[in-house]
Amino acid sequence: MTKYSTITSNSLSKHRKSQNLYSVGFKIGILGGGQLAQMLILKGHELGLEMYCLSSSKSDPAAKVCKNHFAGSPESPKDLEAFFKQVDIITFESEFYSAELLKLVSEKTTTQIFPQPEIIEKLRDRFFQKKFLIENKLPTSKFKTYTRWPSYTELLKDFPKNFVFKKRLGGYDGNGTFIIKTKQNYQDFISKHQKPEIFICEEFIPFKSEKAILFVRNLNNELTHFPLVQSQQKNQRCDWVIGPSKHSKEKALHLKIKKALAQINYVGIIAFELFDTGKDLLINEIAPRVHNTGHYSQQACHQDQFCLHLLAIMNQKLKKPELNAKAFVMTNLIGESNNKPELPSDLDGQLHWYGKAENRPGRKMGHINYIGNNQKQLLQKALKERKRIKL
Amino acid sequence: MTKYSTITSNSLSKHRKSQNLYSVGFKIGILGGGQLAQMLILKGHELGLEMYCLSSSKSDPAAKVCKNHFAGSPESPKDLEAFFKQVDIITFESEFYSAELLKLVSEKTTTQIFPQPEIIEKLRDRFFQKKFLIENKLPTSKFKTYTRWPSYTELLKDFPKNFVFKKRLGGYDGNGTFIIKTKQNYQDFISKHQKPEIFICEEFIPFKSEKAILFVRNLNNELTHFPLVQSQQKNQRCDWVIGPSKHSKEKALHLKIKKALAQINYVGIIAFELFDTGKDLLINEIAPRVHNTGHYSQQACHQDQFCLHLLAIMNQKLKKPELNAKAFVMTNLIGESNNKPELPSDLDGQLHWYGKAENRPGRKMGHINYIGNNQKQLLQKALKERKRIKL
Repeated sequence: MTKYSTITSNSLSKHRKSQNLYSVGFKIGILGGGQLAQMLILKGHELGLEMYCLSSSKSDPAAKVCKNHFAGSPESPKDLEAFFKQVDIITFESEFYSAELLKLVSEKTTTQIFPQPEIIEKLRDRFFQKKFLIENKLPTSKFKTYTRWPSYTELLKDFPKNFVFKKRLGGYDGNGTFIIKTKQNYQDFISKHQKPEIFICEEFIPFKSEKAILFVRNLNNELTHFPLVQSQQKNQRCDWVIGPSKHSKEKALHLKIKKALAQINYVGIIAFELFDTGKDLLINEIAPRVHNTGHYSQQACHQDQFCLHLLAIMNQKLKKPELNAKAFVMTNLIGESNNKPELPSDLDGQLHWYGKAENRPGRKMGHINYIGNNQKQLLQKALKERKRIKL
Repeated sequence: MTKYSTITSNSLSKHRKSQNLYSVGFKIGILGGGQLAQMLILKGHELGLEMYCLSSSKSDPAAKVCKNHFAGSPESPKDLEAFFKQVDIITFESEFYSAELLKLVSEKTTTQIFPQPEIIEKLRDRFFQKKFLIENKLPTSKFKTYTRWPSYTELLKDFPKNFVFKKRLGGYDGNGTFIIKTKQNYQDFISKHQKPEIFICEEFIPFKSEKAILFVRNLNNELTHFPLVQSQQKNQRCDWVIGPSKHSKEKALHLKIKKALAQINYVGIIAFELFDTGKDLLINEIAPRVHNTGHYSQQACHQDQFCLHLLAIMNQKLKKPELNAKAFVMTNLIGESNNKPELPSDLDGQLHWYGKAENRPGRKMGHINYIGNNQKQLLQKALKERKRIKL
């Protein structure tokens, strides 16, 4: 068997410099076994890459579609080391693995990991994330940290409107986010949480809608982005996405994001969740990975977010993702029970079903993508169709 | 672990009758390990189906993307029986496995196979295929069979223009096709081939261009089709495909195909390769499976040929594939040497690389899909881009 890629991390760096050749047959290792890992693996297969996956169980969505699955923990030094040695480059589906450990193993095995752990370590911590945004003059809400719980009156001085406590680490899908609207809310909150230092406190932004945008950048400072989209949350989870969207402040935001990502030499895809206040576009949160608000790109774009992330981490050239349609909608299929899901067989949209072993309330089980000419009509169709699904 | 599908072939038939539910978690077995099997598996994964593959080697393109790979032969009764027992439905990437054996194993294991072996047995034999076309009044070239080699003069009486000998069984990509233009051609041909009965002789059609169209049908007589495309051959292999195409006789052809497929109760996707003579659209060949001329649909259609074939064999409802773009082009990447292929890293189109273990002349290594607004410009771009690839 001819091996197309015997390129090691060292020769990879050289290869990156010339950047002329497509990395056919590269071995990509994915940390994590959920749907984001699964969709990265499926796209990698399509591109002729050799995909590897490290996750705890062989019944994980990603494990089910990956021949080179290693059952193990992305938190175990031993498992990581063995895994890193198998592949040319590593990436991940969650920013919450130990960045320090990943850095150590990457140095020891000389297998590179993108986005880089030293960047992830900062961006995933809401305190450093806010500092990063402010230092780069990126628009975001006011925030503060406390080492002891202030009185409600003191807090109202800092944040005259409502405010939100967010855990610095580990928050996702609304987990770790606490909106405080009354003194009673606040007292309940602090009675349950002893350590003020693990939170940041943010001004509550009365937004008109939530928006999101994905950027992708490679080591050669090539950068592109997907279209701006609107995302609708339900129970603090992404419920559906519609686009393309627009905003008068979008162009200015692009320039600032571009500068900020170049400044930290970010490599890979990165999602910006935004508050649209009408007048402004404020950055609410950053996720340094492929993102639920980008799933629409599988049908709506010529190259989707999973493709561009893989190209970016291999330092391939990046093209601006072109839209296939005037309008697109993505609806999430979120579990509402422990029953076997029932989907009608005549879906209009393109189903992506993650094959999770069990349905349960709040669990992301799949999504459906729609493309068409009219956003409003498409959303109506998509939501009507979703009502026929029993989850 | 909740099992979504404990549906056996018997309950499958019942399930098919109601046809209301999407067959989430169905187990689909694919016979064969090439790129067609690979792309069926990738699409199945996306749909949350459990994909199984029977092929000879674990380095086959399909095996590399399939966790449930069984190394074995689709010609071995023992391997087939073990494989059929693992899954809910079987399909295949090649019509040339033993139809008789498949039928036997399907009956013994009660695992259904689509398209049905008894249909495949006829359609894959060019003699029966021609009879099928003629009986169903489908337009095709004149043909004849011989039990002894006639003289060249006798042949010229039957076919005053040039003629073509085609092997009844096993032909693909121009293999088994012999165009006869001179007496010398004919003498060379018969000196190498002792048995006239394994060939049919067809009138040579001086076509303006070659075209192709894919139909797909389920057990409930729901039928739809992809757009008409033009395909360009080189060295008797598909070189590129462009579309959508049109022809004044297309609508009439649709109706006849629809009737013919209903008459044999065909289930699954089926490709019709056509000669466009300007005035007429004649059916050149039928391939009862996913087809190279349909790969464009991965980027150009909302649901591609692999998706619709899987939906059809599960007896799901079928929607007409909507185009994402005004124009599309697919270029095949065909090996020209035994060297390691070199692809530029800034491809404009979407690469599909099959990950074959070795490059060699004439081997289909991958393809690239393009979508855009103008067919001519898109083809120019695609062919220019392909020149930069070393195969």
